[in-house]
Amino acid sequence: MAAMAGYPADVPEAVDVAVLDGLRSMRLRKRPINAPKEDEVQLQINCVGICGSDMAYWSKGMAGGFVPLDFSEEGLNQGYCGQMGHECSGTVKAVGGKVSHLQVGDRVAMEPGVPCSDCKLCRNGRYNLCPRMRFIGSAVNRVPGALCRKFNHKASYCYKLPPNVSLQEGAMLEPLCVSLQGVTRAKVGCGHHVFVSGAGPIGLMTAMCAKAAGAATVTITDMVESKLEKAKEIGADFTLKADTPNLHEALEAFIGEKFDMSFECCGVPAALNSCIEVTVPGGTVCVVANMPKQVPLDLQVACRHEVDIIGVYRYCNLYPRALAMVASGKINLKPLISKTFQLEDVQNAFEHFASGEPIKVLIQPNPPEQMV
Amino acid sequence: MAAMAGYPADVPEAVDVAVLDGLRSMRLRKRPINAPKEDEVQLQINCVGICGSDMAYWSKGMAGGFVPLDFSEEGLNQGYCGQMGHECSGTVKAVGGKVSHLQVGDRVAMEPGVPCSDCKLCRNGRYNLCPRMRFIGSAVNRVPGALCRKFNHKASYCYKLPPNVSLQEGAMLEPLCVSLQGVTRAKVGCGHHVFVSGAGPIGLMTAMCAKAAGAATVTITDMVESKLEKAKEIGADFTLKADTPNLHEALEAFIGEKFDMSFECCGVPAALNSCIEVTVPGGTVCVVANMPKQVPLDLQVACRHEVDIIGVYRYCNLYPRALAMVASGKINLKPLISKTFQLEDVQNAFEHFASGEPIKVLIQPNPPEQMV
Amino acid sequence: MAAMAGYPADVPEAVDVAVLDGLRSMRLRKRPINAPKEDEVQLQINCVGICGSDMAYWSKGMAGGFVPLDFSEEGLNQGYCGQMGHECSGTVKAVGGKVSHLQVGDRVAMEPGVPCSDCKLCRNGRYNLCPRMRFIGSAVNRVPGALCRKFNHKASYCYKLPPNVSLQEGAMLEPLCVSLQGVTRAKVGCGHHVFVSGAGPIGLMTAMCAKAAGAATVTITDMVESKLEKAKEIGADFTLKADTPNLHEALEAFIGEKFDMSFECCGVPAALNSCIEVTVPGGTVCVVANMPKQVPLDLQVACRHEVDIIGVYRYCNLYPRALAMVASGKINLKPLISKTFQLEDVQNAFEHFASGEPIKVLIQPNPPEQMV
Amino acid sequence: MAAMAGYPADVPEAVDVAVLDGLRSMRLRKRPINAPKEDEVQLQINCVGICGSDMAYWSKGMAGGFVPLDFSEEGLNQGYCGQMGHECSGTVKAVGGKVSHLQVGDRVAMEPGVPCSDCKLCRNGRYNLCPRMRFIGSAVNRVPGALCRKFNHKASYCYKLPPNVSLQEGAMLEPLCVSLQGVTRAKVGCGHHVFVSGAGPIGLMTAMCAKAAGAATVTITDMVESKLEKAKEIGADFTLKADTPNLHEALEAFIGEKFDMSFECCGVPAALNSCIEVTVPGGTVCVVANMPKQVPLDLQVACRHEVDIIGVYRYCNLYPRALAMVASGKINLKPLISKTFQLEDVQNAFEHFASGEPIKVLIQPNPPEQMV
Repeated sequence: MAAMAGYPADVPEAVDVAVLDGLRSMRLRKRPINAPKEDEVQLQINCVGICGSDMAYWSKGMAGGFVPLDFSEEGLNQGYCGQMGHECSGTVKAVGGKVSHLQVGDRVAMEPGVPCSDCKLCRNGRYNLCPRMRFIGSAVNRVPGALCRKFNHKASYCYKLPPNVSLQEGAMLEPLCVSLQGVTRAKVGCGHHVFVSGAGPIGLMTAMCAKAAGAATVTITDMVESKLEKAKEIGADFTLKADTPNLHEALEAFIGEKFDMSFECCGVPAALNSCIEVTVPGGTVCVVANMPKQVPLDLQVACRHEVDIIGVYRYCNLYPRALAMVASGKINLKPLISKTFQLEDVQNAFEHFASGEPIKVLIQPNPPEQMV
Repeated sequence: MAAMAGYPADVPEAVDVAVLDGLRSMRLRKRPINAPKEDEVQLQINCVGICGSDMAYWSKGMAGGFVPLDFSEEGLNQGYCGQMGHECSGTVKAVGGKVSHLQVGDRVAMEPGVPCSDCKLCRNGRYNLCPRMRFIGSAVNRVPGALCRKFNHKASYCYKLPPNVSLQEGAMLEPLCVSLQGVTRAKVGCGHHVFVSGAGPIGLMTAMCAKAAGAATVTITDMVESKLEKAKEIGADFTLKADTPNLHEALEAFIGEKFDMSFECCGVPAALNSCIEVTVPGGTVCVVANMPKQVPLDLQVACRHEVDIIGVYRYCNLYPRALAMVASGKINLKPLISKTFQLEDVQNAFEHFASGEPIKVLIQPNPPEQMV
Repeated sequence: MAAMAGYPADVPEAVDVAVLDGLRSMRLRKRPINAPKEDEVQLQINCVGICGSDMAYWSKGMAGGFVPLDFSEEGLNQGYCGQMGHECSGTVKAVGGKVSHLQVGDRVAMEPGVPCSDCKLCRNGRYNLCPRMRFIGSAVNRVPGALCRKFNHKASYCYKLPPNVSLQEGAMLEPLCVSLQGVTRAKVGCGHHVFVSGAGPIGLMTAMCAKAAGAATVTITDMVESKLEKAKEIGADFTLKADTPNLHEALEAFIGEKFDMSFECCGVPAALNSCIEVTVPGGTVCVVANMPKQVPLDLQVACRHEVDIIGVYRYCNLYPRALAMVASGKINLKPLISKTFQLEDVQNAFEHFASGEPIKVLIQPNPPEQMV
Repeated sequence: MAAMAGYPADVPEAVDVAVLDGLRSMRLRKRPINAPKEDEVQLQINCVGICGSDMAYWSKGMAGGFVPLDFSEEGLNQGYCGQMGHECSGTVKAVGGKVSHLQVGDRVAMEPGVPCSDCKLCRNGRYNLCPRMRFIGSAVNRVPGALCRKFNHKASYCYKLPPNVSLQEGAMLEPLCVSLQGVTRAKVGCGHHVFVSGAGPIGLMTAMCAKAAGAATVTITDMVESKLEKAKEIGADFTLKADTPNLHEALEAFIGEKFDMSFECCGVPAALNSCIEVTVPGGTVCVVANMPKQVPLDLQVACRHEVDIIGVYRYCNLYPRALAMVASGKINLKPLISKTFQLEDVQNAFEHFASGEPIKVLIQPNPPEQMV
């Protein structure tokens, strides 16, 4: 295989990557790829999901709401700028020298964040909070993503998919883990009554995880009727328009009492206060969605009721558990897939997602016949 | 209604109660029943399950394995002796003056143990350990049980059944809570792999609760093939004869690793050591079955692996959650009912249960047309 | 003993009670007292502390910030209006028929809130959240307080003081329990670094409890220099004026890192945001002080760092533990006592406390020679 | 510096190491030492404590009670055989290229076990259970220890000592962490009553940690009177000879109730059953000592009382916390040092320790003037 022109001779190859090279503009570029390092695998990327933060980059040219992307040629050449993709699955094409648990041909889900493994937070089992985290596809972290044909990733953060889990499901483990982080931190268990605010992808997956974790009922709200219908379809017990008058009373009427846990999954401060209001004394409100910088919070109610307010930042130690849930059939992600696109159609994919209609849009950088 | 002969005038009535009046001998007697106290309801008893400890009274004439029952006429007249029945449901026939959450006609499940509510353990939320617990149908505690036509019980320990939960299911909440206590204490969650030793009623219900709590897989062992078939039927993923050679390796082969939690539900010390052996480091072994007084335990393995060993004594705070699980359809108790008997056939019921074949035998002290 | 004029004959006695009969006006009145009920003891009240909520009644004529007190003669006669006192100790003068753990002459600390003991929250070990709580001296709850000569209280909420714990310390267990509730809920342990915002009585006691619970260091802020000196005296490792420029950096400089837990004890929203800022990712912010209804909260930081925000409402299950800490000498409350007053001087006591100088002001409704 | 004869040229140096070259025979040998790797520091070893497992190697020639040491010349040359030392402190002499938090001259405590950092257990915050752990001075793991003049160790497992913590205390952090692991896992908190069985070094340190964690009282037993005196000296509230008749009653009499947590620190099965017996329902028994392979356990009592039995294997995430405790003066290790020896006197040190009298024996492989 010829070396890539203009790159050192040990860079064996160039691959197509999707790059955000301007506001609302995705385009394919060639970028070099090295051989995998000794603890890495090289993956042919099969599926990449688009999420809300990708959409924010694309539509606003901003990372994390405050870091402007650098669309100059220099910026684009730095390799990370605008190279998104963190909800990914792929097939192993090459294996680093010290990798023993994977081999060529294995289909894997990629956990996108690779922590330092050695700081206090990593050692304490909370590696999602590692200050040296390298999270792919994050323009804030300046680490390129996997929205491309081939990608090298730390092998121990690639999880082999069993035959009954598809590469599409593999890519969707990432947002599933965000929801599972919430459901796990909030300690949902058998017989709990759960409220979910927001029926977008994260809200729906949170509802699924809550049911899987034993919730007797899940009640979910949204402003969009079609999303509530989808919520019913995936197992929500009760749904309600978020602008229902006397919302709190209407919600509690479903179950005849307040909720054991509430999950805010739409990013609206007023909804968070509703969560506090409808949660039982001694219960938990979990903030899964991104919130604005400052939120006017009904803290007096929360404190008098000892309702704990806990946030979620990505996930840790959950890929194996999320995968086991999908493999065992306890969670079915398929109803959440709205549409799939080829890598060449990446711009269309973003435009389609931007319409607000779809739940999950997947891009498939390698031919569908290679998808199982 | 005439007062009962030989009893004070304010004892308005006599009812049939099933009494163990000799080894392996159940017989109906008349016993007086008072009006319910102000915090009680009077129930027409509809369903009473027989459990292993009832069987021990019946077959060995011993309570708790060590307290001999007093079959003299004096003993039998004391009211508690040999009056079993703690897995019960009924229909409200009368309501004490201070009871507001129930009314005549309500169908309820009875939580059989009424704690003092005021000791340190009760206040700390662990009322199952209350030293002043009054647990009905326990010859050790000397509190009569509800294997009879009518029974008075503290109203706040009676839980109204929704229309879609039958009185048979209501009676079976009691053993379900034992299993749920184990699954809750052991913190089973999404994606865990669970091992259950023993496929009797408690083992099967533990498997059900573990699945309901998010277990990706449940693996279960027993010596009896038919019980393993029942386990498969109620949702166990893998089953194995408990006398399989190289049992530990065979068990771990199902899931490719050790188990996150193990539950000992058959009361055999060697099985408990198997539980320790097949549990992951950092995992939990939960002892649900009654164990012999002294158990030779592989503590070195448990300690080196920091596998916690936790026991279960009845349950606390779980009736509402267990009921919500059954009402929501997350747990289906119906496949566990083997056979039902009338109160008049109570002796047959015990003999049938003693055969070892059935899972759950239910006695119905009031006519079936009154069962919903 | 003659019955009290104008009261039923079975009301044997009238006692002096301190009543808030107008804004900033405390006056003694005679009120009847019954014999103790069977589960009560009658106490000669020895010590009553004044706290911030008492001060709010006195200075604003409002309970809970929103319920106006009824100073009409009818209101004052209702018995609860303006009868404060919930930080109390006393000596047993009479014992109800069913009380066995106390006898006449015993010196006790009174836990002021008596929950229903039978609701879901009580059964779950969180009786401080009981909706039927009867908390004495709370004008919101309309239950009279113990700022009087004699008082009847549920015996099981009276804790016998060992000889080495004074009645003054007994009265101060109440605010100590509030702090201990925070330190316990936030799980302070060995080697943790703790930040406390506010060096009033609750801030100081929180610092004490944190040290007692194993905190390696406690850092505390306040606006008042003298309070910081007191903080040093009772064991705080580092103190800082709350208006120090670059406060967060200055705080973290003391320990070279962020704090494991932070406790907001002054009720200022900006201070709560400082708590979030200086807490380690994965740490806990505990809101001990009363907060305004709505607080603009830096939730984005809290969520990205998974810093849990937990409130404290009174306390539960902590009187025995707080008492054991004082009895063992691990916590020394004596340096917090600023001044003591006789019941006759109750108005002076409130005026003195209102000056803002004192930490703890105690009123002693019975002669000092009866104090041990 | 000349290369070591017979070793590759890049092995710059030979150092004295203490080697167990036969039963009860320690002798100094020269062994090569490499330059530190990029993530390592090279330490001049200052203090090494001897512990019970070292003693077992020395006196029985067995590792872990079952792996016979290989005293052949070949075995001895393998480098790990019989090279003990895992309770160590030292001074940084050289720093690997990627180390930034330490510099030459820093005094450090060494955490002896270096886990893989990447397996499921490491990621979950339980690295002490890592199956690929490299624990120095463990003949079972076949990793040489630091009982020598110089040693290379992973820098991130070396903790800089503040000026007020001595190198002797630094070495003693290791056993302190074992105790702290127990006290942390058992969740000792403010006002708890704690029982410790065994007043050897680990028992004493467990008592210290329990007090530091808020225990109101610590009660400790041992067979040796002098150890109980030492226990009193370091802060135990109550002590009792372990062979006292009616031991359980006598123990409970100290505090008037059962203990919240019990710690078995002497390795005797009967003592473990005593721990179960004297622990409150709902409490915890923590097994800190090594137990025989099979222990006849009173499991019926443990289960009926829901007394959890949890083991301790080394420690994780505790060095920084243990160090903070010593630095803040909350724990004083100095009274536990019985005697110190030079490296040349290593054989005497073991003989002295074998007498059973001393608590902690320290070996100082570098001149005392270099000790601070």
